[in-house]
Amino acid sequence: MRMNQKVVIGVAGMPGAGKAVLRGAAESMGLSVVIMGDEIRDEAKRRGLEPTPENIGRIMLMLREEEGPTAVAKRCIPKIEEARSDIVFVDGVRSLEEVDEFKRRFANVSLVAVHSSSEARFQRLSKRKRSDDPKGWDVFYQRDLRELSVGQGDVIALADYMIVNEGSYDEFKARTDEVLQAVIKKWRK
Amino acid sequence: MRMNQKVVIGVAGMPGAGKAVLRGAAESMGLSVVIMGDEIRDEAKRRGLEPTPENIGRIMLMLREEEGPTAVAKRCIPKIEEARSDIVFVDGVRSLEEVDEFKRRFANVSLVAVHSSSEARFQRLSKRKRSDDPKGWDVFYQRDLRELSVGQGDVIALADYMIVNEGSYDEFKARTDEVLQAVIKKWRK
Repeated sequence: MRMNQKVVIGVAGMPGAGKAVLRGAAESMGLSVVIMGDEIRDEAKRRGLEPTPENIGRIMLMLREEEGPTAVAKRCIPKIEEARSDIVFVDGVRSLEEVDEFKRRFANVSLVAVHSSSEARFQRLSKRKRSDDPKGWDVFYQRDLRELSVGQGDVIALADYMIVNEGSYDEFKARTDEVLQAVIKKWRK
Repeated sequence: MRMNQKVVIGVAGMPGAGKAVLRGAAESMGLSVVIMGDEIRDEAKRRGLEPTPENIGRIMLMLREEEGPTAVAKRCIPKIEEARSDIVFVDGVRSLEEVDEFKRRFANVSLVAVHSSSEARFQRLSKRKRSDDPKGWDVFYQRDLRELSVGQGDVIALADYMIVNEGSYDEFKARTDEVLQAVIKKWRK
């Protein structure tokens, strides 16, 4: 099979690290966005489950058990291929198996990680109040461990670019733009 | 058992990320240093093995298999307790089990991670020529996977402080000093 020439920017980050800001920056730059978590939320809906953190977490693990560690990546590949832009922002990479799956199909893959301390992430999520946000430190930490159990830490450790989200929003925003521009420049010769 | 009041600064980072620079900075600030990898190198010596990357990697896994995931942490605890300074820099934390072991014994534990892209780490290690440095990309990547297999990525993902080593040495050095001072300030009220 001929490699697809699209550029994949795979993004990893623990819950609340700030991936959404990076995604917003990618959208502003005209990049198409594929959100891996949407596959899990869609699957929860298909199975008639509310998108609570417990259900979302359970489906994330279940899908991988039923269809293998690349289940979610495989569902995203056609969406990446059909994306409007040459460079596609893929939000929510969770394991090196997913990275390898993308590298088998796409010639150009870069990995970006967003990092915040657990304390900062917990503060942020406690304010956000999304349906799958944690109700307390214990729920938060269990969710972290679930994310790590599928391999998210490995992707963060081996990322090509690391963005630290610990200072002000403006600093973080400036850094996301800088990194996205560096990735785009790398592949768009 | 009463908690020991020493402050532990646990440091994680993939091979070649720049932990040694951070360690040097800690030493300059008068902190005692405990190097977890020394336990593995000592064990290799006891077993009459050369410190090649393969042997060091094998011993790292073997010790954990024989004595459990906290084998190395347990050997370091008396050294931390006996250290001269109140704040002890512990180099080479490799799993959340090790972090939990330290937290059971010491009231104050902070985690610092150092991150560099695989490309930058490979370049750096190829120049360094230490006995356990990689001979090529494949050996390098296998070593990364071995480090990740015990849980190093989880520690990096959950670090309280992340130092990115991707620019100049001076930038990196300035950032290591800044982070160490922040950790010291946090605990030395």
